[in-house]
Amino acid sequence: MTDPRLAALSQTLPELRLLTDAADLEHYGRDWTRRWTPAPLAIALPATVEQVQAIVRWAREAGVAIVPSGGRTGLSGGAVAANGELVVSLERMNKAIGFDPVDRTLTVQAGMALEAVHNAAKEHGLVYPVDFAARGSCSIGGNIATNAGGIRVIRYGNTREWVAGLKLVDGRGELLDVGRGLVKNSSGYDLRHLAVASEGTLGIIVEATLRLTDPPPPTSVMLLALADFDALMRVFAELRAKLRLEAFEFFTDRALYHVLAHGAQKPFDEAHPYYVVTEFAAGEAEEGAALAAFEHCVGEGWVLDGVISQSEAQAAQLWRLREGITESLAKYVPYKNDVSVRISAMPAFLAETRALLGQEYPQFDVVWFGHIGDGNLHINVLKPDDMAQVDFVNDCERVTKLLAQALQRHDGSISAEHGIGLVKKPYLSSTRSEAEIALMRGIRRVLDPDGLMNPGKLFDA
Amino acid sequence: MTDPRLAALSQTLPELRLLTDAADLEHYGRDWTRRWTPAPLAIALPATVEQVQAIVRWAREAGVAIVPSGGRTGLSGGAVAANGELVVSLERMNKAIGFDPVDRTLTVQAGMALEAVHNAAKEHGLVYPVDFAARGSCSIGGNIATNAGGIRVIRYGNTREWVAGLKLVDGRGELLDVGRGLVKNSSGYDLRHLAVASEGTLGIIVEATLRLTDPPPPTSVMLLALADFDALMRVFAELRAKLRLEAFEFFTDRALYHVLAHGAQKPFDEAHPYYVVTEFAAGEAEEGAALAAFEHCVGEGWVLDGVISQSEAQAAQLWRLREGITESLAKYVPYKNDVSVRISAMPAFLAETRALLGQEYPQFDVVWFGHIGDGNLHINVLKPDDMAQVDFVNDCERVTKLLAQALQRHDGSISAEHGIGLVKKPYLSSTRSEAEIALMRGIRRVLDPDGLMNPGKLFDA
Repeated sequence: MTDPRLAALSQTLPELRLLTDAADLEHYGRDWTRRWTPAPLAIALPATVEQVQAIVRWAREAGVAIVPSGGRTGLSGGAVAANGELVVSLERMNKAIGFDPVDRTLTVQAGMALEAVHNAAKEHGLVYPVDFAARGSCSIGGNIATNAGGIRVIRYGNTREWVAGLKLVDGRGELLDVGRGLVKNSSGYDLRHLAVASEGTLGIIVEATLRLTDPPPPTSVMLLALADFDALMRVFAELRAKLRLEAFEFFTDRALYHVLAHGAQKPFDEAHPYYVVTEFAAGEAEEGAALAAFEHCVGEGWVLDGVISQSEAQAAQLWRLREGITESLAKYVPYKNDVSVRISAMPAFLAETRALLGQEYPQFDVVWFGHIGDGNLHINVLKPDDMAQVDFVNDCERVTKLLAQALQRHDGSISAEHGIGLVKKPYLSSTRSEAEIALMRGIRRVLDPDGLMNPGKLFDA
Repeated sequence: MTDPRLAALSQTLPELRLLTDAADLEHYGRDWTRRWTPAPLAIALPATVEQVQAIVRWAREAGVAIVPSGGRTGLSGGAVAANGELVVSLERMNKAIGFDPVDRTLTVQAGMALEAVHNAAKEHGLVYPVDFAARGSCSIGGNIATNAGGIRVIRYGNTREWVAGLKLVDGRGELLDVGRGLVKNSSGYDLRHLAVASEGTLGIIVEATLRLTDPPPPTSVMLLALADFDALMRVFAELRAKLRLEAFEFFTDRALYHVLAHGAQKPFDEAHPYYVVTEFAAGEAEEGAALAAFEHCVGEGWVLDGVISQSEAQAAQLWRLREGITESLAKYVPYKNDVSVRISAMPAFLAETRALLGQEYPQFDVVWFGHIGDGNLHINVLKPDDMAQVDFVNDCERVTKLLAQALQRHDGSISAEHGIGLVKKPYLSSTRSEAEIALMRGIRRVLDPDGLMNPGKLFDA
């Protein structure tokens, strides 16, 4: 530890765990984007809020930038440290620190994994309903910093809705305790909501008080095969009107191809262009409704085939077809778009986007899936084996510019749930006006006057 | 219109309606607080967003402060214009401008009354679920500016949860279109949530896109008589566990006294110290559960008497006992506290507050009511006829200081739903830390660099 700045940090905080091995710098310096070469100064693993505050005070004196770090499962480069930053990993701050049965809240340290939050809620007979495939690795702090969405948004909303309070160490080293679990509080600006989706640019989220809710009713899972995108919107409208939907996810034949190649079980004998996995409340009262809705969709020609889970094991098998997609694509280093429009704008946007990508990406394997009931589409472009990564990314960026223009026309967002980070930064102005970006820049300066909190992410300071 | 600044405004915007009559200045210069003497420069009644923007640009040039104005039903002085400000009333901008059945959103101009929003939603078979007694007069823009709560928060949350997007003309005259009805959008700071509860200090809310939802199931209303505060919390826990609560409101014998004196119908022969009005889903399945829960509460000695509505008319009659309270107290010019704590902190806070008020207010008629299931308590102190308003307020302020200290100990809020405005400004630091207030001040300067938007409200710039 020859760097004098780190020596000063160690002197200030002798009990702070610091890592500087090359393997650690590599490990903690990147997220799932794999596009930037990690080059952090060091990794700090604080154990307490006070240590986090002391680190920020040191960073201001030393002029070292900080990259807050959770599970680093992000897909937008928000946790990348490629410029000599200090990575502040919350992984040692990963415990539940309070549960209140009356408030129905769980207070946790920010480094706790989402799955651990699920389990802690379950111990108390309740659920934390935000869920997605990275649950085992991602941290709740990272979920909050990107306002993570996932597969249950249609019923429960995004992470934002479940944060009753949080503690943030801002760029001045101040500890802000905002929200504090109050149901009602009209005492000025809601800094809690400002911290949610701030991607580490306003400070380091160190604790959160999460709302919990009753477990959902027993559910069934249905897999449907569809002929076209039009049918998708019609089936969604029909099922939303007739059932209590807990999830409504779609994917294309190319997605199924990859997830089957990755070991999932083939659901139908025949191949179909589009598929839907939907989960819905399934008591006795609902059984008839589900069957009737299914039959209506078949009768109208929207649904070509379908299966309803008869057991939890089968439900898990059907879910795997959707949830296994991202993992099955990982080896192709996909270029990911994560876009959203209003649900009502989806048909027109889809038509335009299909035409655009058909024209621009004829040479690529393009895999579509997403949360159609939230207006959120994931478009994964797979890199051909024989193409250099840099050429591939350049070609994808060219098309993302066109996609961003389409989004702008449809009032959509360039990032539905992954965040802006580094990956989407060039396209932020397709979603946010220049006036909004100027305001965000000004707000950032208020909380982080020295510009040390995750600089270069979201927008340039 | 001899004021040269107004002449300049009229010249810039010849079509703008401007009022300068003494009666108009009086009418538009105050809200329901009735504590400050209205003294605005004039009243502007813009008809379009562009006019609002032009007014703000004029205000910057002329150095005139602006007070955004909705239904002026506020209870914290947030809409008071007592210092030569231009009141910008949104009352002419009061129309629904869009409904989308797929998104289930209603887009409205900010001056629309809450009740008109309810009716517009109903026309489409849906509901906008935020509701409270001032529904006929208050405007949706004002609701958003204070994050209004009301009687359905226990089921539906506050106004914040229902704002899918809004348009704000900020202090620079920029039109910000934030949220835009997207379900998922992780593209930086959520300026929509920043505008909610900003009390006009960041700009003028001119439009909102509101989420709608399915109508609630058929409900019953139950009135319960209780012996003490302990019973209140126990009854709440029991009913919350057994029923789908749509509302759970409490009030004291003094509240009932005033509402009966104002013409409501006496519910029970005997008098009791505490009452609860609760509304819950009431299908066939729920009927048994409601009766069992009621009998359990009676058996435990928590509930002394009760009645369940047998008709819509009776339900309305029972609701009137709660909803008529504020109106029945108006003639006593009550000093209002609107405080909240976490639900779990309610018993200890209640005990402390009762002891405090019993000691400090023996000479006053103190009326308690509120939304116990949200941790929100309204404490109204009635002015004795023979006491001067100024002496009365001074004495109340003295006790509010003590109450604010109790709130601070219990991590509560000095304003659950009324907002801070002028009334609660001296006590803001009981709820928000100095660091938070400093940040809010900094953020305000970003959106309103000249300090012209509702100056003096919330906190001093």
